[in-house]
Amino acid sequence: MYKITKTDLEYLEQIVGKEFVFAGDEVNPDYTHDEIYGMEDFPGCIVFPTSAEEISAIMKYASSNKIPVTVRGSGTGLCGGCVPIYGGILLVTTRMNRVLEIDEDNLTATVEPGVILLSFQEELERFGLFYAPDPGEKSATIGGNVMTNAGGMRAVKYGVTRDHVLGLEAVLATGEIISVGGKIHKNSSGYSLLDLFIGSEGTLGVVTKITVKLLPLPKKTATLLVPFPSLKAAISTVSLILKSRVLPNALEFMEREIIEAAETYLGKPFPDKSAPAYLLVRFDGNTKEELEQDCDHVADICLAAGAIDAYIASDKEQQQLLWDARGAFLEALKAMSELDEVDIVVPKTEIASLVSYTKDLQQEYGVRILSFGHAGDGNVHIYILKDDFEEEKWQALLPKVMQKLYQKGEELQGQVSGEHGIGYLKKPYLKESLGDTLIDLQQRIKEAFDPHLILNPGKVVS
Amino acid sequence: MYKITKTDLEYLEQIVGKEFVFAGDEVNPDYTHDEIYGMEDFPGCIVFPTSAEEISAIMKYASSNKIPVTVRGSGTGLCGGCVPIYGGILLVTTRMNRVLEIDEDNLTATVEPGVILLSFQEELERFGLFYAPDPGEKSATIGGNVMTNAGGMRAVKYGVTRDHVLGLEAVLATGEIISVGGKIHKNSSGYSLLDLFIGSEGTLGVVTKITVKLLPLPKKTATLLVPFPSLKAAISTVSLILKSRVLPNALEFMEREIIEAAETYLGKPFPDKSAPAYLLVRFDGNTKEELEQDCDHVADICLAAGAIDAYIASDKEQQQLLWDARGAFLEALKAMSELDEVDIVVPKTEIASLVSYTKDLQQEYGVRILSFGHAGDGNVHIYILKDDFEEEKWQALLPKVMQKLYQKGEELQGQVSGEHGIGYLKKPYLKESLGDTLIDLQQRIKEAFDPHLILNPGKVVS
Repeated sequence: MYKITKTDLEYLEQIVGKEFVFAGDEVNPDYTHDEIYGMEDFPGCIVFPTSAEEISAIMKYASSNKIPVTVRGSGTGLCGGCVPIYGGILLVTTRMNRVLEIDEDNLTATVEPGVILLSFQEELERFGLFYAPDPGEKSATIGGNVMTNAGGMRAVKYGVTRDHVLGLEAVLATGEIISVGGKIHKNSSGYSLLDLFIGSEGTLGVVTKITVKLLPLPKKTATLLVPFPSLKAAISTVSLILKSRVLPNALEFMEREIIEAAETYLGKPFPDKSAPAYLLVRFDGNTKEELEQDCDHVADICLAAGAIDAYIASDKEQQQLLWDARGAFLEALKAMSELDEVDIVVPKTEIASLVSYTKDLQQEYGVRILSFGHAGDGNVHIYILKDDFEEEKWQALLPKVMQKLYQKGEELQGQVSGEHGIGYLKKPYLKESLGDTLIDLQQRIKEAFDPHLILNPGKVVS
Repeated sequence: MYKITKTDLEYLEQIVGKEFVFAGDEVNPDYTHDEIYGMEDFPGCIVFPTSAEEISAIMKYASSNKIPVTVRGSGTGLCGGCVPIYGGILLVTTRMNRVLEIDEDNLTATVEPGVILLSFQEELERFGLFYAPDPGEKSATIGGNVMTNAGGMRAVKYGVTRDHVLGLEAVLATGEIISVGGKIHKNSSGYSLLDLFIGSEGTLGVVTKITVKLLPLPKKTATLLVPFPSLKAAISTVSLILKSRVLPNALEFMEREIIEAAETYLGKPFPDKSAPAYLLVRFDGNTKEELEQDCDHVADICLAAGAIDAYIASDKEQQQLLWDARGAFLEALKAMSELDEVDIVVPKTEIASLVSYTKDLQQEYGVRILSFGHAGDGNVHIYILKDDFEEEKWQALLPKVMQKLYQKGEELQGQVSGEHGIGYLKKPYLKESLGDTLIDLQQRIKEAFDPHLILNPGKVVS
């Protein structure tokens, strides 16, 4: 636990300006936690830099004085990744929020890490372009998305954040400013440091610039809402859809219980909640015919597999209503109860087994477990709700349920996290899943980048 | 330079069988080089293992005795990556050539590293599936493709090998068998060791199993051959095509001189060689209408930009003829002259500058420089032909021309290699391009994986 000194503060003020350094009572408690319940820590100070040069000066100083530095964007993480557990400096990127360039010829954008996903997407739309990764949390920063390799809903068709990042500028723990990749679509020039930074959760460097791939915005989308008589029936249909070789841009599953929570949270009715479970499927393309064909094709598959009905939403407002509800699920759950989450990813064919296992656990432990997520890519978000459990009982029960879920994930050939990352809270599960040899390798990589272990200490594998 | 002993040979024979170890005079000179001119070295011995367990035993022994181990697939590389420059063991993967599983439900395949790209593609076609990466050299092994992160012709639409590899099994330098990733499409579970292995050219581990993403095979393709009055006119049209937001699955440029060489080499006439330069554009999709629309659209753009004509090939044989010629370019050049190559990748908008610069160099140095390549993704293959130069003059001239090309690549914000990798021959250029800080980081990564530096020593950054 490092204690920030007066000298430290003076030095930092000199770099970023007095009005952008906060210490002691000035530290806003909002910056002591992310979006998961029950984990918070105060940093020694918070700084809001605006350039790679400022960050380089901060890192050189921190490196000389072995001061922990934790980087934070919007703080929308779910595993304590940006919580400054060893105190020191909390470096917030939100002032670095400029879209530096939209290159329409090369179809790339270069942005600062603090750019908010939603505003970036809106800006690109004006150019008739889009950035394919689409995490549910639109108020996240792109820097945060890159640091967790967020996947989001369109991964089934377009891949994850990693697949769309072409280049990065970053400041190393020792203060050097480096640049990897570029506006290039192929690169076999040594080990991919770019890919190491992506998903490294602020432990290998401070990202200061990001170049991403853009795509022409598809002219049209259509969404299919398909009610099923059971969650099992809904999920079992997913592999039939994918096997039929259509490629939706999103393929989500949800239960009535969550839909009702979202209705309450948003104060808006959902078009249908008569069934216990639903698939929500979206297609994009350039012609109405193509989308209608896809929707009809998937509707037929679902109906043959026992779906109760299949509603096609093609106008923008109808679709918005459905996806707004989907986007509000996590917030809606959090409004209902304290909770913890598991973000396991399994082969697509194993989703049904995993989700059905959560129902067994629910029975066995008498705890509410709700899940929703990316049926199309095998990434399931599972939420364990505290509801009325007494704190003591909850603390005894929660780790057991989590442990069982991760064991099941292992058994189904899955991995600990599909997109939320490891942060602090998932470290024991990662260790268990990867085993000593792989954890050792990861620790050696960490040391190669950050010899004094000052960058986001105590996270991922350190 | 390690000298293999009798004891070493006996030990290796015990592991893989006497008939699969070759030493001394038994070493076939074919295994002393790859496909680039002028670099060869004999290994102490060659072994042909068939399993991860055998390779693990070999690596444990090599590690204890500090014996260099170089891994080789088909040996189709172009920068000496698989040449055993420090002697020791040459480990050839060609007996590990089984397609272990084609999982039609998860749309994945799991293969051994020695599977040949062409036979893999043919096998998948029978399932109505395909593996998107499409390097020109179809006799390469998938292991080799993964180790160089080969891109190939379809990268403009589908991305490079990295984007399609989901999981790997590998043997570490110290003999442990590890497994990273899996049949999963998202993964944020610690640093991406998977992505570090991809493109590491056999320096971080010996890959023994590869799980790749498959896609439904598009039902139809169409190809457009567009003659232009000059190479410059052809290349300048590329960014107009890409800006128009159609997405070809291949977009190649070529000169008449290379087409003629391919005709001679293949003994088959090319449909048109009246023009000095061509674009070759291919689309894939599921309907004839869609492809016709794309072809017409691109043909219009080309004609408006000064193309002489635009021929659409939609039947399979016509298209095959065009792509066979394209596939034979490198062999055709090699049949004409000794040569060296540069595999620079630049932003797409800079291709015209780079190719036009090769013409300046050709003039300045009086040497033939021919280029062809992936106009759609910025990866240009540039060949410097020795022709009738005397050896001494050639050796004096070649490095100067290479140096100038790499400098130009740097200036255009490019990288040293788009897909061929660094191997041995591109090391000085990589060092120059990345600079000390990034090279240091890469060397530290190498040491984290291979503490005794026995895996493919002397390559990439070691």
